[in-house]
Amino acid sequence: MSELLKMGRAVLDAQPFSVYMHAELAALEPGRAELMLDLGTNFLQQNGFAHGGVIGYLADNSLTFAGGSVLGPNVLTESYSLTYLSPGVGDRLVARAEVVHHSRRRAVCRCDVFSVEEGDESLCATALGSIIAVDS
Amino acid sequence: MSELLKMGRAVLDAQPFSVYMHAELAALEPGRAELMLDLGTNFLQQNGFAHGGVIGYLADNSLTFAGGSVLGPNVLTESYSLTYLSPGVGDRLVARAEVVHHSRRRAVCRCDVFSVEEGDESLCATALGSIIAVDS
Amino acid sequence: MSELLKMGRAVLDAQPFSVYMHAELAALEPGRAELMLDLGTNFLQQNGFAHGGVIGYLADNSLTFAGGSVLGPNVLTESYSLTYLSPGVGDRLVARAEVVHHSRRRAVCRCDVFSVEEGDESLCATALGSIIAVDS
Amino acid sequence: MSELLKMGRAVLDAQPFSVYMHAELAALEPGRAELMLDLGTNFLQQNGFAHGGVIGYLADNSLTFAGGSVLGPNVLTESYSLTYLSPGVGDRLVARAEVVHHSRRRAVCRCDVFSVEEGDESLCATALGSIIAVDS
Repeated sequence: MSELLKMGRAVLDAQPFSVYMHAELAALEPGRAELMLDLGTNFLQQNGFAHGGVIGYLADNSLTFAGGSVLGPNVLTESYSLTYLSPGVGDRLVARAEVVHHSRRRAVCRCDVFSVEEGDESLCATALGSIIAVDS
Repeated sequence: MSELLKMGRAVLDAQPFSVYMHAELAALEPGRAELMLDLGTNFLQQNGFAHGGVIGYLADNSLTFAGGSVLGPNVLTESYSLTYLSPGVGDRLVARAEVVHHSRRRAVCRCDVFSVEEGDESLCATALGSIIAVDS
Repeated sequence: MSELLKMGRAVLDAQPFSVYMHAELAALEPGRAELMLDLGTNFLQQNGFAHGGVIGYLADNSLTFAGGSVLGPNVLTESYSLTYLSPGVGDRLVARAEVVHHSRRRAVCRCDVFSVEEGDESLCATALGSIIAVDS
Repeated sequence: MSELLKMGRAVLDAQPFSVYMHAELAALEPGRAELMLDLGTNFLQQNGFAHGGVIGYLADNSLTFAGGSVLGPNVLTESYSLTYLSPGVGDRLVARAEVVHHSRRRAVCRCDVFSVEEGDESLCATALGSIIAVDS
């Protein structure tokens, strides 16, 4: 496991809400992050689909990790725009974020969130966000 | 309690994720919704502030309820943009959403999320989103 | 005329594109800006409504002026989200922007764009954006 | 020239504002559009860079054309989020938009805007937007 991924997982484990969401950092490389979680019963809305708040959590946090992969560990999401594309159904959700452009203090990242059902992925949301470095 | 608020609370209670988030619909009137939750330990990030995912959940869901208050119960959030303004600290978070404009099938809503500490409110995020009616 | 409005008008006049758009800064106060233009034939799309690009220009620039009213003259729009609400028809467009929250270096502003027909205003778009101070 | 591109250019030519902006539809294929313009003096801001309103026009309109390439000619941009990345300098601006996901009535598209200086491209903005089909 790379040092970057190890550090990323330590940050995720230090976020009580990410522990509460059972999120897992599957990959972290310079400019790229992949965050996932199992779509347990707690994460659904009234029609049995993934709740938007779960998708939003994954999108936001994967954007932050992608930004942090180029800006360093002290970052936060400043803003993001998210569009839902199709209902999130299946066993798990995977968010894949990448840096589009960055300066020393700010990274603009995009992210796609997929639902996975028996190995088949389906795009359920896409997002665009700005991550900024903060003084430690 | 109004019929609208009663119906809104029934919808919220039917969302397993909202139950998992211990969210409470404090108000629901035509064109306006207020959603809140206690800022328990599970909802924090690594620095002790409210996790962005919690703020995003509240923003998204309060926008949906505001939209649903004018479009009817079968609605979903199509997209939203969220900007974080200051760290969420204190005892609870309150999201207040209102309809800016709506047609028969779509409501554009804005929302402010406040953190509350010993009764003092502090604006911690603002959002703009589109809610659409779906066929039941 | 206030010093702030005088300075704002000088900035607008120094933007060749704003001159090309015949834009007029109607008001500029701390935390608030109003930008307008006459809806001439050049500003329409194929169905005779205001072109989205004209509405977007007004929204973006009014957000920048609102941000500049609290951050100082050296600012730029970092990002914005814009939602169209109804066709822009009539004699002119007016964008009214206000600061929602600001720190020393960044202002988050919202803005509504109205079309005006024989004195009657109609909301045609709404936007949310982030303005940042840049070193002069 | 493909029928689709021919039709797209006819739509662009029918938009008085696009004529005023001297915009040119360089490419239009199912799911993809490329819109450009020469960065003449009229299109600058006070520091000699491309005015944000010009970049926003290109982003918005290229998103609409990309959406129209899969939804048909009667479309409009419902909303978009735009982030500026670096100053637009050089001879021209090029916006490249693509469809991320679409249903029968709605296409979600992203777009990158580049400034071109002596043949070298530089990314100056990125956007994400929703395009909807309207009844003709």
